[in-house]
Amino acid sequence: MTGRPARRSGDSDDREAILEAARGAFAEHGYDAASIRGIAGAAGVDTTVVHHYFGTKHRLFLAAANVPIDPREVLASVVDGDRAEMGQRLVRAFLTAWDGPAGSAGVALLRSATGNRLAGKLFREFVVTQILGKVQSSLGLGLDPADARLRVSLVASQMVGLAMVRYVLRVEPLASAPPDLLIATFGPVVQHYLTGDLSPDD
Amino acid sequence: MTGRPARRSGDSDDREAILEAARGAFAEHGYDAASIRGIAGAAGVDTTVVHHYFGTKHRLFLAAANVPIDPREVLASVVDGDRAEMGQRLVRAFLTAWDGPAGSAGVALLRSATGNRLAGKLFREFVVTQILGKVQSSLGLGLDPADARLRVSLVASQMVGLAMVRYVLRVEPLASAPPDLLIATFGPVVQHYLTGDLSPDD
Repeated sequence: MTGRPARRSGDSDDREAILEAARGAFAEHGYDAASIRGIAGAAGVDTTVVHHYFGTKHRLFLAAANVPIDPREVLASVVDGDRAEMGQRLVRAFLTAWDGPAGSAGVALLRSATGNRLAGKLFREFVVTQILGKVQSSLGLGLDPADARLRVSLVASQMVGLAMVRYVLRVEPLASAPPDLLIATFGPVVQHYLTGDLSPDD
Repeated sequence: MTGRPARRSGDSDDREAILEAARGAFAEHGYDAASIRGIAGAAGVDTTVVHHYFGTKHRLFLAAANVPIDPREVLASVVDGDRAEMGQRLVRAFLTAWDGPAGSAGVALLRSATGNRLAGKLFREFVVTQILGKVQSSLGLGLDPADARLRVSLVASQMVGLAMVRYVLRVEPLASAPPDLLIATFGPVVQHYLTGDLSPDD
């Protein structure tokens, strides 16, 4: 290795510099406060270069956080349909994504989010800004924001735990269980977290 | 640094060599098949040295897997008492351990189990051999082993997910939620996994 080659505008160095600046900005300031302008400035490129490579702030965030699937596309199929079966649809969509080609990227994402502070903050921003808003507007019906936030973090706890046990730690029988068994088992619990009565029994 | 000092019998090098041999043996052969004799041999020490440092195979395993708390002590308080409130007691004991001084070691354990294949295998062995057996004998009453295994892995998925979201990723509001709220929320779900009807509704 003879050191990093000089930067050339428009090449993959720009792309990497933008991603690095984006990771810092999203982790430091959060998704909403981070700006394409600020990220472009930190990366030493024009904002048009950012848009050229990544299109929108949303897509730049997914790339920066190494999220292999756009949750908006997955969530669309989850929130459409019978509200009482949203939990099952969510588990099904989750397993389809993780059992598919994006699964190994998902494992890598969980590994880095667990082992690396910056990646962990990005993951948290991802859950809160990309999933919470969508779920909240879908559950809608006057749900107060604090309640929505609690429900989303409960669902996140079960989904992250399922991913950890099935794909990362590979604890049996969950590691090899057929998706239908998991949908039948976790679906009602996720549904409970989404729409059930969470107040204590007594 | 001028290189590793020569081995002296009975010093901390022995302890480290035993732990390293134990990690390899437990991950490779599993808890039951791994033997103190084999581990001592691989570490180049007498079995009495292993017993001197670690006492039992159980305690050697906990040390090798970096588990900061003996689950047998925690589980004893969980399985004693009203069976219908076992879920709540389990969540309470879990939070007491993780919110206490052992919590940071727990986070380190999750990090290494996620990022490192050997540590991941040890973690899996830990869940299966140290927790499954105890829970199975506690639930008892003719529970078939496959069912017990499924139930324990379901509980593990929710507990690992709770630890990830609360202590590693720190997603709010779970990261700062008071234990009583979490016990009231997760307790019934864990109880469902332990003793509920898991067959599909339809």
